[in-house]
Amino acid sequence: MNNEGFVKKLNEKMTRLINKSTMVEQAMAYSLLSAGKRIRPVLIKLICEDMGVQEDLIWNPAMAVELFHTASLIHDDLPQIDDSPLRRGRPSCHVVFGNDMAILAGDGLMLMAFCVLNQTPADPVSKSMLFDLFSKSTYDVLIGEAMDVEFTGKEKDINDVIEMYRKKTGALFSFCFAIGAILMKKLEYLEKLINVGSTFGVWFQIVDDLKDVSGKDENVGKTTGRDKALGKPTVVNIMGIQEAKNFADNLYESVIVQLKSLSLNKVVDFLCALRE
Amino acid sequence: MNNEGFVKKLNEKMTRLINKSTMVEQAMAYSLLSAGKRIRPVLIKLICEDMGVQEDLIWNPAMAVELFHTASLIHDDLPQIDDSPLRRGRPSCHVVFGNDMAILAGDGLMLMAFCVLNQTPADPVSKSMLFDLFSKSTYDVLIGEAMDVEFTGKEKDINDVIEMYRKKTGALFSFCFAIGAILMKKLEYLEKLINVGSTFGVWFQIVDDLKDVSGKDENVGKTTGRDKALGKPTVVNIMGIQEAKNFADNLYESVIVQLKSLSLNKVVDFLCALRE
Repeated sequence: MNNEGFVKKLNEKMTRLINKSTMVEQAMAYSLLSAGKRIRPVLIKLICEDMGVQEDLIWNPAMAVELFHTASLIHDDLPQIDDSPLRRGRPSCHVVFGNDMAILAGDGLMLMAFCVLNQTPADPVSKSMLFDLFSKSTYDVLIGEAMDVEFTGKEKDINDVIEMYRKKTGALFSFCFAIGAILMKKLEYLEKLINVGSTFGVWFQIVDDLKDVSGKDENVGKTTGRDKALGKPTVVNIMGIQEAKNFADNLYESVIVQLKSLSLNKVVDFLCALRE
Repeated sequence: MNNEGFVKKLNEKMTRLINKSTMVEQAMAYSLLSAGKRIRPVLIKLICEDMGVQEDLIWNPAMAVELFHTASLIHDDLPQIDDSPLRRGRPSCHVVFGNDMAILAGDGLMLMAFCVLNQTPADPVSKSMLFDLFSKSTYDVLIGEAMDVEFTGKEKDINDVIEMYRKKTGALFSFCFAIGAILMKKLEYLEKLINVGSTFGVWFQIVDDLKDVSGKDENVGKTTGRDKALGKPTVVNIMGIQEAKNFADNLYESVIVQLKSLSLNKVVDFLCALRE
């Protein structure tokens, strides 16, 4: 299956997850079924293909990650947090459904992520490991988001900001990178893949910061210039644009080297395309 | 161990869960470690004792339930939802830490609940069943809370309101009542116990509604008179106080009869004391 076919089938499966009989489910579906790029599910698919995981095991972790990621975006966009009215090229959840429903829709997608993950047709030991890493990773994402809020308007050291990126953006990528090793019981690869995911997440976040500085709303699909307006300490703000670009390039190279050493070739090809 | 000793040890264990190095963790600890009655953990303890579950299996599900319950209270109390400034006898989380941190603290406790549940020292099959029921139950709680918000200011049928109570309050009690059957692999009791939990939850919610109508803030530990002020359709508003009391009495009797038929005697004693 190519990536486009995978995303199409993933979106169909996610459409069937939510029955929309209540307003909160409509809000959940609105955010989940918007035109997200599904980078995390595609990464999971490619890693699993590279490692030889059978296809029927891939869907539930891929959906769980996208459900949780969407939940975190809904809460991040709230007026009480980042106050972003635009997401994935259309009005944010709270703009359409109100702040109350957006808070609850984020909660709902978060909880549904765990329901969906637990329906992975894997053996109980692998499922328990998936659950363990998913619950820890999502908790780290949350702590990272809260560090981001706490740091706003404050002077912060570059190491604090990178630690925040590792949690906020890296932790969920760590889960994505580690899934293949868990499902194939290649536990000797686990720590390395968790670290690769974390480093990739820091790179990904810096690229996002750079878009915020120099992108346009219609290209980026969300409101740009928010970091500066909110007084957020970012790697770009601290290092300056050029040095941040160099730093990101080094992270990216280290990710590629490690993925190549594990022969994760489809993932490498995808990341090369993603960078362009 | 008596119930007081259990609650004391539970509170000590929960104190050690959160390291408080970030502001969001301080907010989580503030709400979690307030003077809650810990009714759900105590119920779990008594059910497990009645069914012969070994003690070391009880703590993690009991903490997970209290973590999730506290998370749902934090989000419920937000100005965007029920706007309750008082909880468990002191200012609500958002009053002390701000709306942004309260949203994230609720998320954090929710996610930590799953981390903690997964550390239950049970076999993988039982853990997978615990996870399955916990993720479904917590999702139902969320849908129930969102129905509560959606119903506010609207004319609603008594059946809609009871269905909302079953989800909002009953679903987590269902999980509490079912834990013993899962951990003792007495799966033939599972459906009955899930139903008992759901019925008990409806009773519990009606008693809560009655306190909201006739209680005083200082006795109830939270702001009273909110349901009417918010225009919420409740069983009490629809049936009237006396008929709601009768209805609740019938639910209570049916719960006791069923628990007695399963010889869950410690639970029966606890519920009798709770009613008084």
